[in-house]
Amino acid sequence: MTRCVVVGGSGYVGGELIRLLLGHPKVTVAAATSQRHAGRRVDSLHPNLRGVTDLVFTSPRDVPGCDVAFLAAGQESAIGLVRQLLSVVDCLIDLSPDFRLSDQDAYERYYGHPHAAPDLLSSFVPGLPEQHRPCLRDARRISVPGCMATAAVLALRPLARDGLVDGAVIVDGRIGSSGSGSAATQLNLHAERSGAMRVFAPNGHRHEAEIAQATGLAVLMSATGVEAVRGLQVLCHVQLTRAVPEREVRQLYRDSYANEPFVRVVTERRGLYRLPEPKILIGSNFCDVGFATVPSSRHVTVVAALDNLVKGGAGNAVQCLNIRMGWPERLGLEFPGLHPV
Amino acid sequence: MTRCVVVGGSGYVGGELIRLLLGHPKVTVAAATSQRHAGRRVDSLHPNLRGVTDLVFTSPRDVPGCDVAFLAAGQESAIGLVRQLLSVVDCLIDLSPDFRLSDQDAYERYYGHPHAAPDLLSSFVPGLPEQHRPCLRDARRISVPGCMATAAVLALRPLARDGLVDGAVIVDGRIGSSGSGSAATQLNLHAERSGAMRVFAPNGHRHEAEIAQATGLAVLMSATGVEAVRGLQVLCHVQLTRAVPEREVRQLYRDSYANEPFVRVVTERRGLYRLPEPKILIGSNFCDVGFATVPSSRHVTVVAALDNLVKGGAGNAVQCLNIRMGWPERLGLEFPGLHPV
Amino acid sequence: MTRCVVVGGSGYVGGELIRLLLGHPKVTVAAATSQRHAGRRVDSLHPNLRGVTDLVFTSPRDVPGCDVAFLAAGQESAIGLVRQLLSVVDCLIDLSPDFRLSDQDAYERYYGHPHAAPDLLSSFVPGLPEQHRPCLRDARRISVPGCMATAAVLALRPLARDGLVDGAVIVDGRIGSSGSGSAATQLNLHAERSGAMRVFAPNGHRHEAEIAQATGLAVLMSATGVEAVRGLQVLCHVQLTRAVPEREVRQLYRDSYANEPFVRVVTERRGLYRLPEPKILIGSNFCDVGFATVPSSRHVTVVAALDNLVKGGAGNAVQCLNIRMGWPERLGLEFPGLHPV
Amino acid sequence: MTRCVVVGGSGYVGGELIRLLLGHPKVTVAAATSQRHAGRRVDSLHPNLRGVTDLVFTSPRDVPGCDVAFLAAGQESAIGLVRQLLSVVDCLIDLSPDFRLSDQDAYERYYGHPHAAPDLLSSFVPGLPEQHRPCLRDARRISVPGCMATAAVLALRPLARDGLVDGAVIVDGRIGSSGSGSAATQLNLHAERSGAMRVFAPNGHRHEAEIAQATGLAVLMSATGVEAVRGLQVLCHVQLTRAVPEREVRQLYRDSYANEPFVRVVTERRGLYRLPEPKILIGSNFCDVGFATVPSSRHVTVVAALDNLVKGGAGNAVQCLNIRMGWPERLGLEFPGLHPV
Repeated sequence: MTRCVVVGGSGYVGGELIRLLLGHPKVTVAAATSQRHAGRRVDSLHPNLRGVTDLVFTSPRDVPGCDVAFLAAGQESAIGLVRQLLSVVDCLIDLSPDFRLSDQDAYERYYGHPHAAPDLLSSFVPGLPEQHRPCLRDARRISVPGCMATAAVLALRPLARDGLVDGAVIVDGRIGSSGSGSAATQLNLHAERSGAMRVFAPNGHRHEAEIAQATGLAVLMSATGVEAVRGLQVLCHVQLTRAVPEREVRQLYRDSYANEPFVRVVTERRGLYRLPEPKILIGSNFCDVGFATVPSSRHVTVVAALDNLVKGGAGNAVQCLNIRMGWPERLGLEFPGLHPV
Repeated sequence: MTRCVVVGGSGYVGGELIRLLLGHPKVTVAAATSQRHAGRRVDSLHPNLRGVTDLVFTSPRDVPGCDVAFLAAGQESAIGLVRQLLSVVDCLIDLSPDFRLSDQDAYERYYGHPHAAPDLLSSFVPGLPEQHRPCLRDARRISVPGCMATAAVLALRPLARDGLVDGAVIVDGRIGSSGSGSAATQLNLHAERSGAMRVFAPNGHRHEAEIAQATGLAVLMSATGVEAVRGLQVLCHVQLTRAVPEREVRQLYRDSYANEPFVRVVTERRGLYRLPEPKILIGSNFCDVGFATVPSSRHVTVVAALDNLVKGGAGNAVQCLNIRMGWPERLGLEFPGLHPV
Repeated sequence: MTRCVVVGGSGYVGGELIRLLLGHPKVTVAAATSQRHAGRRVDSLHPNLRGVTDLVFTSPRDVPGCDVAFLAAGQESAIGLVRQLLSVVDCLIDLSPDFRLSDQDAYERYYGHPHAAPDLLSSFVPGLPEQHRPCLRDARRISVPGCMATAAVLALRPLARDGLVDGAVIVDGRIGSSGSGSAATQLNLHAERSGAMRVFAPNGHRHEAEIAQATGLAVLMSATGVEAVRGLQVLCHVQLTRAVPEREVRQLYRDSYANEPFVRVVTERRGLYRLPEPKILIGSNFCDVGFATVPSSRHVTVVAALDNLVKGGAGNAVQCLNIRMGWPERLGLEFPGLHPV
Repeated sequence: MTRCVVVGGSGYVGGELIRLLLGHPKVTVAAATSQRHAGRRVDSLHPNLRGVTDLVFTSPRDVPGCDVAFLAAGQESAIGLVRQLLSVVDCLIDLSPDFRLSDQDAYERYYGHPHAAPDLLSSFVPGLPEQHRPCLRDARRISVPGCMATAAVLALRPLARDGLVDGAVIVDGRIGSSGSGSAATQLNLHAERSGAMRVFAPNGHRHEAEIAQATGLAVLMSATGVEAVRGLQVLCHVQLTRAVPEREVRQLYRDSYANEPFVRVVTERRGLYRLPEPKILIGSNFCDVGFATVPSSRHVTVVAALDNLVKGGAGNAVQCLNIRMGWPERLGLEFPGLHPV
């Protein structure tokens, strides 16, 4: 069994990691840390794990010897901790935004302050299996992308790779409340957030930089919080270099993702779920991708959906682990989602 | 115009008071106070009032001269403030729980500490028009009941007054998240509260004491937070002293509330809204009351619903004001609610 | 009192019309018709109106003599009915999509069949007070725009009128379930629709044609159903002809809507409600409009929000009525919306 | 591999059965039938199964040879079909209400018509492992209880078995919209059902009879639809024969369920999830049971929660299958639920 540690296990992404790793047949959870909740039972914060584990949160200073460390310490975790972990584990999988951008200027522009460890920036492999699978096989440092970035990159990559995109792409993200974390702020108060359509980023959302970096495209990104706890959707408006017939686009997407275990192409002509819908993906590691062309026009709308805590975070990290260890990629990630929910 | 002040105007009940008073044809809002937000515009906290008012919150120390003061300062406000207000206004309408129980022992039992001003307890008239209208006409101190208490008292009063109730009544309350106020706590975090059925009081809810006091019945009360921002329903299980035919119960309720402007008896045999439903009451001052008998049984289920911030708080307070001032009781409270919503 | 009739009063827009007209101080509701529900009480379908009205639905064949007829018969109502009404009323206010497009080819392209009464197309004045107020003052035929079109036109008009828009505008609409009407279809089943982010129009939504017609812009429109019953938001991505400083855009919007009773410009730097949010507009006739520029860029994001059944339908119709009759424009439309909700 | 057939696979319980059986390591889904949707792909109705199965619905007349048949044909399925299935399969697991009540008079009283096959009534073993595990080991006919009945029986059984209950128990059920099935009716329209607290059974709900039968108690049951798609909670008000100390009740529940794989006793003194909460059980087969005593009183409130489609239906059926086949009871049912969700 591979010994794993979850550093920062009290938040929502950390909780998902613990859940997935506890159910993984080749993994032992050696420890879950929490600065604030050290000493409390894991199931006191993640009540879905009652009867599933007796783990108790430990202090991040007491990380035990292990093979793989997952870092889910929230936005901009301590670089000191990263350096400490790098010295003791075979593989570090970081779910924070710290090492997602390889360019230090872009980091400063989007995060508003200089990077604390620019020397490390280029040493992380992006944790997006669909784009970096070969490198992930022997990666020692993996940086899992932002949840909306993952959806948008999977939506745009087939068109971008074939050079079919003309000009800037508009990416509009919609996301549930779990995306803003487990801190009790006025912003996330139920009475204020419930039923909202809150345009929290009318432009320039941070994931914009990640999408641009991964696809090479010019990107304009807006983001809105909508009523949901989990789930995320991106709707991308793309101008093509030429009017591409619908069946050619379909073939392109089908070919791109034919062998991907967790990407499904969804463009149905009938039924209630014609384009990617996050609600049927809750708890699953799927990213659904679909599109709609306009006859004899160069405009195409591309839609992608996923569970922001799974394929947008913890599940994606476990998929990377599976690749890194040479295990079957679906291991521990078989849950298909629910209907209705 | 009657000059009114809202003390504690930044919370949810305070915001509703300001909204209702601004729309009231015989009232001027002389000030709205907030300890924490003094100096900020009222519409920065209550964005529905943008373009409706230019009021700015003042400090509670700067309450101007006025005719009527509404106290919406949340749970257990400072008694000092009450004494200060009593000395300067013609009429104080208190929406806090401080003066709802006339019995000081009951207060201590339910609130866990002795009352800070027992000498004032008996001087407040309960702000429930349907029960205390005559006294409200010249009351100088009015204590508006708890939201779930109002619904339960209106549900049970016709049976209780006729001595038809045998033994203890079980009152089960269900309520939306606005009932727990506007403080940012983990309890009210959207991701935790959304879609919940949280039994926050399996028994002994504080409103139990109010219902017992107002009806003279033995009461067992549980309360559950359900998915809603506004709205409240009580379902009461009552054992009658004899099997009362359905049409007799109907007549009893119809007679009891025939002249009440804000109580509707709702017991339909068809349609989607056969018994009281909070969602169609959002924003309105109605309390709907209905019931269902069991043929040749002594059991009857009584249901009541209202908007916890309106008839369960601010609207009820304005209705009391109308009575106190001798104005038409519906003044400023005409909004009927929406469908669908 | 002006005698009004609501033709098609059993649906959601019809119900809102009845509610607003019943509360209007200068209007009598002479009748509400429903083909399917003739003979049933209005409050059996619109339970919020219990105790407010004793009206009973009549057959559309029995429209009584009246001054103004509102037509809320749903999508593509019978042209025969329109002709009949035109012959007997002083003013017809149509809330169906039949007469929104003045161009018969555009109609056919977007609705998939030829128009049944092309001779009437040019005789209707668009019911958008902010654009057509002068014409509405003596209009005999008014066609109220689509709900998303109203929001988008109010969002884009200041920029369009000043010739500041470069190329096609992307309009992304998000809307609650009441927008698809009151018919019981699988699409609107609670278990399927709840929590959804359903991209029901990835491009080419019908309101696209209305927005283009009203603004003169090239428009690409997508639409998504999100979790809400009421409420609608449009997010518009606009490329300007030059980089316009934020304060200039602000001035432009402020000037455009300074005298409008129901348009508020909302672009706050702090607080929870910085840009237009539909949830605080539920039940109100406001359309909130806001924007966000990108420093030294030609891109601007414009956001508008409204209640699809009020400013997006019934409330807008009543505002048109007020203008037509020379009454104060706010009459019967004073409800400011709720917070929280 | 054991060959299973799901008869009535297009509804919500049927869909869950297919999902659980597809993920079960010892089972093959030989067929899923649907009268109405024969010929359509299973994933066209259950889109969460895209990429998971290529099954196509067959007609119920074409049930292939198999070992086990699950009957999920909705309320009151054809008795003819039951007889046909009984003659060809080793084991029939019926999820309809047809064979839940062993008493033909009780059936007639609660369902309003005589039972169509009274001769079969006594031949079904109730599919409640916690009560009937020994009999399930060689059962050939299993009738899975109603979802709210399962929760209530698990809540009440420890007290009932020890003879601690005095008089009638009041059971108050709250349930999400998936409990009323997948038919498109006005009742389940999103705009009407969203945010509702609909008391659809103020008393005498059908599950009342099941609970009485399973516990031997007198039961009064009410039921309310609340805002949720999945999830169910019962709150039971019980009068004990004597004042039982809290720690004794705790021990009683702990002992009763110590060896149960899917019942957890939840009565926490701190945290957000002190009593059973359905939302963290979505997708899981757990039933959480908790209680709250009143010091020196004979009143106890017992709460139970589960996912109505899993432990309240399809998951419970699979647990019965595991017992019947001698497999580990958790097989295929390991999903622990999500947090937050």
